[in-house]
Amino acid sequence: MALSYAIIGTGGIGGYYGGCLAKFGKDVHFLFHSDYEFVKQYGLQVDSVRGDFHLQSVQAYGNSSEMPKCDVVLVCMKTTNNHLLKAILSSIVHANSVVVLIQNGLGIEKQLADEMPGVSIVGATAFICTTKIGPGHVHHAEYGSLTMAKYCGECEAVLQQIAADFEEAGVQVNVGDDLNSIRWKKLVWNIPYNGLTVVLNAETDDLTFNPDTRQLVIDLMNEVVAAGRACGAKISDTFVSKMIDMTEKMTPYSPSMRVDYDAHRPMEIQAMYSNPIQIALQHGYAMKKTEVVEKQLRFLAQKR
Amino acid sequence: MALSYAIIGTGGIGGYYGGCLAKFGKDVHFLFHSDYEFVKQYGLQVDSVRGDFHLQSVQAYGNSSEMPKCDVVLVCMKTTNNHLLKAILSSIVHANSVVVLIQNGLGIEKQLADEMPGVSIVGATAFICTTKIGPGHVHHAEYGSLTMAKYCGECEAVLQQIAADFEEAGVQVNVGDDLNSIRWKKLVWNIPYNGLTVVLNAETDDLTFNPDTRQLVIDLMNEVVAAGRACGAKISDTFVSKMIDMTEKMTPYSPSMRVDYDAHRPMEIQAMYSNPIQIALQHGYAMKKTEVVEKQLRFLAQKR
Repeated sequence: MALSYAIIGTGGIGGYYGGCLAKFGKDVHFLFHSDYEFVKQYGLQVDSVRGDFHLQSVQAYGNSSEMPKCDVVLVCMKTTNNHLLKAILSSIVHANSVVVLIQNGLGIEKQLADEMPGVSIVGATAFICTTKIGPGHVHHAEYGSLTMAKYCGECEAVLQQIAADFEEAGVQVNVGDDLNSIRWKKLVWNIPYNGLTVVLNAETDDLTFNPDTRQLVIDLMNEVVAAGRACGAKISDTFVSKMIDMTEKMTPYSPSMRVDYDAHRPMEIQAMYSNPIQIALQHGYAMKKTEVVEKQLRFLAQKR
Repeated sequence: MALSYAIIGTGGIGGYYGGCLAKFGKDVHFLFHSDYEFVKQYGLQVDSVRGDFHLQSVQAYGNSSEMPKCDVVLVCMKTTNNHLLKAILSSIVHANSVVVLIQNGLGIEKQLADEMPGVSIVGATAFICTTKIGPGHVHHAEYGSLTMAKYCGECEAVLQQIAADFEEAGVQVNVGDDLNSIRWKKLVWNIPYNGLTVVLNAETDDLTFNPDTRQLVIDLMNEVVAAGRACGAKISDTFVSKMIDMTEKMTPYSPSMRVDYDAHRPMEIQAMYSNPIQIALQHGYAMKKTEVVEKQLRFLAQKR
């Protein structure tokens, strides 16, 4: 089965993963926003720790209505644009298409399922440091694995094929069966580091090595673990210390929310903070510390 | 009974209250730090909404060891210097002296009582907007009342006389009998507004009129009320809404911690955040939201 792919949102994530698939001969159709004309003319450049490559001939589109129907739609845009998703996807999906949300946060699959009943949806988290550094130009600095799990629809076979296609392209894919746990585990890192680097104008290493913010990061991580468990997520007792150890070894960097804030783009506060807070509360758990950071972020977003 | 007064720390608070007493003929001895030479030569200028005044001849001292023993010592310096208090007070107090701590925070009377057993101690909170705007130059913008209550010692009669002296000088003094409640009620305003104006680089009105930070302020206030009650403080159910109403009507301004941070001076994190958090925890209440702000402030203080 040769799958056709659509990449919705060709920034750091979409450019890298779509670029890898295209480089290995997969049929990939890229939706661009402002970079469309540039990529049509000059192609897509990926600078990667695993080897740079250039795709001269890219199946690029400036408008989703011009794209063909694809077997797999990889949604790589920020959740702040998810209100546009139904309009974008309507002309791209066929009866058996699988939509893969490679996004951060919680509650995003449910929102799409409510808007587009019957569509098969997979949730995915990317463990990667990658940034768009110019028009049609992506820099991949570190890591690269994807973790995916089904949200709804009969899509197990396609999901296995997606994993195989990515493996062929050199991207490790873990296919899980518990999307709820995958999403909450990702939040354990995202909630402290994304918000605090914005509020405190700091880098990941500043927060990790200062004793006060290190404790605050750990407190927030423990709160996310407790909230996730209240919502049925399975997270081991050693997960928080593993996340801290991992962050200590990482090259210091600005998480996506900090990059968005500095670039005056909308931040993913709703998906990454407000949705988890609301969903945890529905399960009887109040994320008190997370609420502080959420409200601080909303204030900063409005002030800007 | 004509009381003699020592003013320890002649900034906005000490300059205004000591200046009012001296203007009305009380025997006031002012301890200055960097302004000593200036005030010796040019006197003390108070610009006040209730009428400007100038004191040409001021009993000014540059060193506490040169001051006479006084009946009343008004401690008006920041709590960040309280580790110096015992050394400063030792030569100023006599057997019946009363030390009045016109300071913010919690646990400061106990610390002094432990260091100087036998000394009579009164705690006081100032409801006032006043700032030192230059050498020997104080600007009093709004309000001015003092609330006092005994912490330890036989000092009821002196406390009544202090209140009478201040009333004569046009300063309203409320003498209470429950210092614990007075301190916690002051924290209800101080904890949200001092910390958040620093962390979010904002003014009081920014925080009050933005819907997200308004909710955060209210959440923090409710947490302080709950913590105070766990520690035995009596705070009415309408106190939080009264504080919000009051702040809405205030001229927007920077609380003392914001002023200190902007001036690269130490912030009163220990007395205003860490002590309440620790004391509440000893009484079984975890101030989870306040802990977030405390750790953010400690990070910012160390970064600066």
